[in-house]
Amino acid sequence: MSDYFKDIAPIQFEGLNSENPLAFRYYNADQVVLGKTMKEHLRFAACYWHTFCWNGLDPFGGGTFERPWFAGGTPLQLAEQKADAAFDFFTKLTVPYYCFHDRDVAPEGADPRESHHNFKHMVEKLAAHQERTGMKLLWGTANLFSHRRFMSGAATNPNPELFAMAAAQVRDAMDATHQLGGENYVLWGGREGYESLLNTNIGHELDQMGRFLNMVVEYKYKIGFKGAILIEPKPREPSKHQYDFDTATVYGLLARAGLEKEIQVNIEANHATLSGHSFEHEVATALALGIFGSLDMNRGDYQLGWDTDQFPNNVPELALTMYYIMQAGGFKTGGCNFDAKVRRQSIDAADLFHGHVGGMDVCARALLAAEKMISDSRMEQAISERYAGWGQTWAQDIMAGKVGLDALADQVLANNTDVLPVSGRQEYLENLVNRFV
Amino acid sequence: MSDYFKDIAPIQFEGLNSENPLAFRYYNADQVVLGKTMKEHLRFAACYWHTFCWNGLDPFGGGTFERPWFAGGTPLQLAEQKADAAFDFFTKLTVPYYCFHDRDVAPEGADPRESHHNFKHMVEKLAAHQERTGMKLLWGTANLFSHRRFMSGAATNPNPELFAMAAAQVRDAMDATHQLGGENYVLWGGREGYESLLNTNIGHELDQMGRFLNMVVEYKYKIGFKGAILIEPKPREPSKHQYDFDTATVYGLLARAGLEKEIQVNIEANHATLSGHSFEHEVATALALGIFGSLDMNRGDYQLGWDTDQFPNNVPELALTMYYIMQAGGFKTGGCNFDAKVRRQSIDAADLFHGHVGGMDVCARALLAAEKMISDSRMEQAISERYAGWGQTWAQDIMAGKVGLDALADQVLANNTDVLPVSGRQEYLENLVNRFV
Amino acid sequence: MSDYFKDIAPIQFEGLNSENPLAFRYYNADQVVLGKTMKEHLRFAACYWHTFCWNGLDPFGGGTFERPWFAGGTPLQLAEQKADAAFDFFTKLTVPYYCFHDRDVAPEGADPRESHHNFKHMVEKLAAHQERTGMKLLWGTANLFSHRRFMSGAATNPNPELFAMAAAQVRDAMDATHQLGGENYVLWGGREGYESLLNTNIGHELDQMGRFLNMVVEYKYKIGFKGAILIEPKPREPSKHQYDFDTATVYGLLARAGLEKEIQVNIEANHATLSGHSFEHEVATALALGIFGSLDMNRGDYQLGWDTDQFPNNVPELALTMYYIMQAGGFKTGGCNFDAKVRRQSIDAADLFHGHVGGMDVCARALLAAEKMISDSRMEQAISERYAGWGQTWAQDIMAGKVGLDALADQVLANNTDVLPVSGRQEYLENLVNRFV
Amino acid sequence: MSDYFKDIAPIQFEGLNSENPLAFRYYNADQVVLGKTMKEHLRFAACYWHTFCWNGLDPFGGGTFERPWFAGGTPLQLAEQKADAAFDFFTKLTVPYYCFHDRDVAPEGADPRESHHNFKHMVEKLAAHQERTGMKLLWGTANLFSHRRFMSGAATNPNPELFAMAAAQVRDAMDATHQLGGENYVLWGGREGYESLLNTNIGHELDQMGRFLNMVVEYKYKIGFKGAILIEPKPREPSKHQYDFDTATVYGLLARAGLEKEIQVNIEANHATLSGHSFEHEVATALALGIFGSLDMNRGDYQLGWDTDQFPNNVPELALTMYYIMQAGGFKTGGCNFDAKVRRQSIDAADLFHGHVGGMDVCARALLAAEKMISDSRMEQAISERYAGWGQTWAQDIMAGKVGLDALADQVLANNTDVLPVSGRQEYLENLVNRFV
Ligand SMILES: [Co+2]
Ligand SMILES: [Co+2]
Ligand SMILES: [Co+2]
Ligand SMILES: [Co+2]
Ligand SMILES: [Co+2]
Ligand SMILES: [Co+2]
Ligand SMILES: [Co+2]
Ligand SMILES: [Co+2]
Repeated sequence: MSDYFKDIAPIQFEGLNSENPLAFRYYNADQVVLGKTMKEHLRFAACYWHTFCWNGLDPFGGGTFERPWFAGGTPLQLAEQKADAAFDFFTKLTVPYYCFHDRDVAPEGADPRESHHNFKHMVEKLAAHQERTGMKLLWGTANLFSHRRFMSGAATNPNPELFAMAAAQVRDAMDATHQLGGENYVLWGGREGYESLLNTNIGHELDQMGRFLNMVVEYKYKIGFKGAILIEPKPREPSKHQYDFDTATVYGLLARAGLEKEIQVNIEANHATLSGHSFEHEVATALALGIFGSLDMNRGDYQLGWDTDQFPNNVPELALTMYYIMQAGGFKTGGCNFDAKVRRQSIDAADLFHGHVGGMDVCARALLAAEKMISDSRMEQAISERYAGWGQTWAQDIMAGKVGLDALADQVLANNTDVLPVSGRQEYLENLVNRFV
Repeated sequence: MSDYFKDIAPIQFEGLNSENPLAFRYYNADQVVLGKTMKEHLRFAACYWHTFCWNGLDPFGGGTFERPWFAGGTPLQLAEQKADAAFDFFTKLTVPYYCFHDRDVAPEGADPRESHHNFKHMVEKLAAHQERTGMKLLWGTANLFSHRRFMSGAATNPNPELFAMAAAQVRDAMDATHQLGGENYVLWGGREGYESLLNTNIGHELDQMGRFLNMVVEYKYKIGFKGAILIEPKPREPSKHQYDFDTATVYGLLARAGLEKEIQVNIEANHATLSGHSFEHEVATALALGIFGSLDMNRGDYQLGWDTDQFPNNVPELALTMYYIMQAGGFKTGGCNFDAKVRRQSIDAADLFHGHVGGMDVCARALLAAEKMISDSRMEQAISERYAGWGQTWAQDIMAGKVGLDALADQVLANNTDVLPVSGRQEYLENLVNRFV
Repeated sequence: MSDYFKDIAPIQFEGLNSENPLAFRYYNADQVVLGKTMKEHLRFAACYWHTFCWNGLDPFGGGTFERPWFAGGTPLQLAEQKADAAFDFFTKLTVPYYCFHDRDVAPEGADPRESHHNFKHMVEKLAAHQERTGMKLLWGTANLFSHRRFMSGAATNPNPELFAMAAAQVRDAMDATHQLGGENYVLWGGREGYESLLNTNIGHELDQMGRFLNMVVEYKYKIGFKGAILIEPKPREPSKHQYDFDTATVYGLLARAGLEKEIQVNIEANHATLSGHSFEHEVATALALGIFGSLDMNRGDYQLGWDTDQFPNNVPELALTMYYIMQAGGFKTGGCNFDAKVRRQSIDAADLFHGHVGGMDVCARALLAAEKMISDSRMEQAISERYAGWGQTWAQDIMAGKVGLDALADQVLANNTDVLPVSGRQEYLENLVNRFV
Repeated sequence: MSDYFKDIAPIQFEGLNSENPLAFRYYNADQVVLGKTMKEHLRFAACYWHTFCWNGLDPFGGGTFERPWFAGGTPLQLAEQKADAAFDFFTKLTVPYYCFHDRDVAPEGADPRESHHNFKHMVEKLAAHQERTGMKLLWGTANLFSHRRFMSGAATNPNPELFAMAAAQVRDAMDATHQLGGENYVLWGGREGYESLLNTNIGHELDQMGRFLNMVVEYKYKIGFKGAILIEPKPREPSKHQYDFDTATVYGLLARAGLEKEIQVNIEANHATLSGHSFEHEVATALALGIFGSLDMNRGDYQLGWDTDQFPNNVPELALTMYYIMQAGGFKTGGCNFDAKVRRQSIDAADLFHGHVGGMDVCARALLAAEKMISDSRMEQAISERYAGWGQTWAQDIMAGKVGLDALADQVLANNTDVLPVSGRQEYLENLVNRFV
């Protein structure tokens, strides 16, 4: 047991009248919404990296956080202390899931074997913590972007030996995820892109990436991992351009590699906005393309051009995202992982709880709003009425490929009738949404 | 013959020492570069819409241009005057090609049949002008975004009758393009996207778009059109989100519709930068994906968030784009169409020439720079050396699918050797480029 | 009386349980909040231009709205019909104020005198409508950006004759504002900036602008206008760069012209975000600099790089803006003018009401949230506690200029004590805000 | 003498035909341009921080550079090794100037006194290096943003004790700059701004900043420092909003503090573009406002929303900036400091030279282009002709305040003449510029 959080009591639902800043006012784990408990719907996860690994460093300044597990022991001892603190945090926060990168939980060793053994050692510790606490793993992943060896990419590195080193790390991370009962395995290509076209062969790198993704899927079947394989789109940063720019781009990548039925997306709110889309756009697009998997829940800052990974705090913004997901049946293997970090000036242990508690309550409010939208049904009706014309036989024939350009054109000239446009009613619909948030 | 340009003499190549602002200093049509004449390589086109239709209007003010064909006759008379002026301009400018939308050349009629007949009438006039002048059509297209009936989209309209009206317009535009010997047919989906998710069914609209594209391809084969079908990606504007966001997104759309071998992209510089990419990125991506078709040559303003369609004027920026295209063998059916307009304060007839002459010279300089890059070969060598490791047998086996994650991981642990990163040499390469521009 | 809105009943407050989409659920004009009625606090205005003049045109397509006053009469007859419809709309909407540009209400004439007389004529009509309905004028302004004569600027035009024509229009607009009892006079410099530095003398144009502003202030005193003179900052669009970029820039302009006590800012939400700031930043900055005047209430789209002027619909975003204003004592001469337009697909008369009713309710919710924030007082306390150290005598001496760099540096070295940072508690504060919205 | 650069020979001018990538092709220090040598005009400086302190770390990965002075000694020993290497680099590069932050050259100590003594110690070493090599200091500055104590600002910290600690560091840095003959002293407010308005009192912080700037100016006079005091504008990053957003904002800050004659700006290209302006805009604005001081020469990436600090490599872009400066008489105390860093994949010692040599050549080309623009004079004439009307007596009377709004308006109505707009000729001017680059 860590004592870093000893002053924090387990977080409880206290309802709207609570003045306790470290209580839930909306997130009531066992409250039934749309046929399931909030806990079952939201499948909250806390992440290892931002909360337990980041020290507050930014490009213009050093660390501001002073966590006890940052110094004062061997790397493995510190990793164990960190795990103690992490599970203490997770359980006090009452999230059912957590997520990690291999290098978050175990230190990089002096050579590949030592890294491998460090990781194996810590996975045993995590297994024990899970056993002890009932915590579950939402997803695992491999960090293929922090070590200098991957400065020019991992799967898309110009050097095949680094592709092999990436493969080794991913095998270990997939094995660990499988062993720990993880429900998904995630790939984020922080350096899978380029800094300059001048030293880059895009075509070759896209082929490498396609091959790597296929290897991951093959290995999933080989070991019998039943979870989903997910890619997390991001347009840039750290790379100038990343090959997994956004959901539509990832769809193209997957189609090119023949994997559009095998891999889904883990959509992060801040990555969505950095790519020039709203969060709900990315989710709605993934649902439309059949590749929606999971969420990295956070928010960016609309005035900043980089990934700020702040906790979500705007209910109206999140409510639509939640609505689209719930309307489509809710999460399957995915969930709401807080890929979010407290600001670098938020240096107290309590701040970590403030960030997550606030974020969880915002998600719960969004879920409650989505429930209202669904039971009200006017939003859904507005859409179905607008496209109702496509239910006509002649229109279905178009979609079925029975009618060609020529026949349609003839019909238009034959009838010589024009079509009057009808109002899109956007303001009415926006006001309608505001009834629910 | 129009007399709007009567004070402008045909533009000639006068070389570097010319002080004539309306002469080419670099573009020497018959000069051989990389095995072809500049004219054959660059395949310049001027566009109808910006130069002959736009009156200088912007969202905050009315027209500033006073062209003689804007008023003072019946719509068809004015369309004929406009065509006279346009061909006068094209020939004085010495571009071999032009491009148009159906509604640029012929007025919208009171009903579909009248529009159809107006267009047919003007296509005959264009044919006669082509015959008379030797001008050729680089591509034709249909304007499916200006009329209010298409305010909610054309192929992706919620109303199938508008899908049919779009089909009618496209058939006419394809027929005209075929009749006029056009070398490509272009689709730009100005309203194929959404303003608000609240009234949009993305999945249905993507299916509509896929079906429409297939109809276009089917019709191409039906009429024996030998040119290429092109989509012009654009991320937004006028729509909040357009389904043809960028080249990678279009690739995904095409793959989903089974058309990635049938349709290519017409890449516009300003659309590239609005989508968060450099122009050369879009071109290199299209080449890598096998869907590069043609260019809409212009530039945006890096501080402005909308499509400014200015004439290209930065040689170093354009040189890389030209290099990638020439390295890949140059244009096939495509060319360099100036989708560019003079600023709304540039109200004189001569300004139209200044814009194009400057743009053509910038392209010629970029082509000359590309020639130097190719003959020098150090840029290409730097890439091939960087990826040389992938030529090894074991690395080729990875790409060929003969080796899996497991085997690679075992090999890494067996050898336990780490890999040292090597410099990406970006600054060296950037300096190398600067030798050629 | 116009009959364009004959199907719309006057909008009433019906409270939260109302299912009537054209009723207020929050805006209860006579409800007292923070010591005044909502009506007195919010001082709502509807604008003439977007709702009565714009026809739905965008850069890629023609008008979509078909208002009866757009065609079918002489320009002055249509202007009168428009005024009838406008006052019908204002009174049904129950906003107490309206705003206009000179050219919104009266047509441009064939020459300056005709324009002058047209405007005079319509000002009489407006006066009669005000008299009849009790409507008041929040502010008037002159449109110095739509006519082609102003394509290169008005006050900052390279031609002094256009400076004079701008002066003539502004005098008329100030006279009209004065005559109609307007509470403010606004200047928006849509073309007061540049398209290209290549034809621009920034220094001269800034001097021209400074002189023009001084002339406006001199004239205000000359005619005894008691309202405020306001500048509306905007970073760009239509100009590439506008001299009134944002609030801080306007402060500098005013200081350079000696007018920082004479002119205030009219802050528009969408202009704020286009300039790289949040709305609340612009408001808080103006309050800090002592130049806060009024609001143009709307919202932009965070993914779009141009001024979309949508109706506000995000309560949490607006609540902070309202909080800062109310905390500083509320509006004086200013108010909430809806510089907002329905989407171009929202073609029905009712859509104009949906936009405004939704916007007014969102503002009312924001005001109610601000009231809660103020009565709770924890937000204010957090700030005052954080800066409490500056209340110490030695710290006040610094601010008073009694202590120099040298003395402070000596003191630090003498004491040799370091200072521990304290948490900024941002997440705690964000959660606190979420209690009130 | 460091041996890190032992394989690099001093960089020499070899002219256009040189194939040596580590030679100047354009920068010929002693070549006379516009009446001075290139060396005298450009006043190149290399910076300490990016080249000698940064280890290649980014927010997603650790260091990639392995410099000998990063490890293996006491902090002061390493600082001395670093200084040896730095002066070795400066002299081989043949830049006449360098720039530093206090903490770049000397390690932070355990307490203020130790930091003070470390710095004093290293300033003596720098003095000796300057004496030995003839290198000069372009400017010094204090790093008030990297240490965690300054996480909430320095001059604008809510805690006055941190204001005092900032004062102590600045006094030392000003003393050192004075002692080392520095020609300017620079202030960059990396944390002088806010992360969240919720914990910020903007008005108080602006007052603190104004007072701090006044203290700096008072101290300058006290010690008899003859150089210029400069502020380096930047819109955001690391802070969400910085008070020195851009040149116009800084002008307002200075005017509010009564310092617009005392402090000038150090304009960085990448900061310009992050603030929504072109580099030449910021320079032209500073010249127009009389506060132009010096340049931080680099470039950003137009697709990236953060400060990439790349070496300049686009001659056309830089040429205009250089033209405006030269047209205004050239640099006074300022110069061209490379606030630029090699990419994190550029890990070789030689890469540091490639970056700077390329950047210096680009600046030299831009200077040569500016010379051509000035001798040609058509660019200047186009401007003076465009504003010629303001030379008329009646127009000068306007500017002199002799004519009011009323008189001008009367004159317009009396004459009732309209003014025809004239072409802005932007395309002609852009083509003209392209003759010189
Ligand atoms: Co994420
Ligand atoms: Co992120
Ligand atoms: Co185009
Ligand atoms: Co365009
Ligand atoms: Co406004
Ligand atoms: Co606006
Ligand atoms: Co800098
Ligand atoms: Co920088």
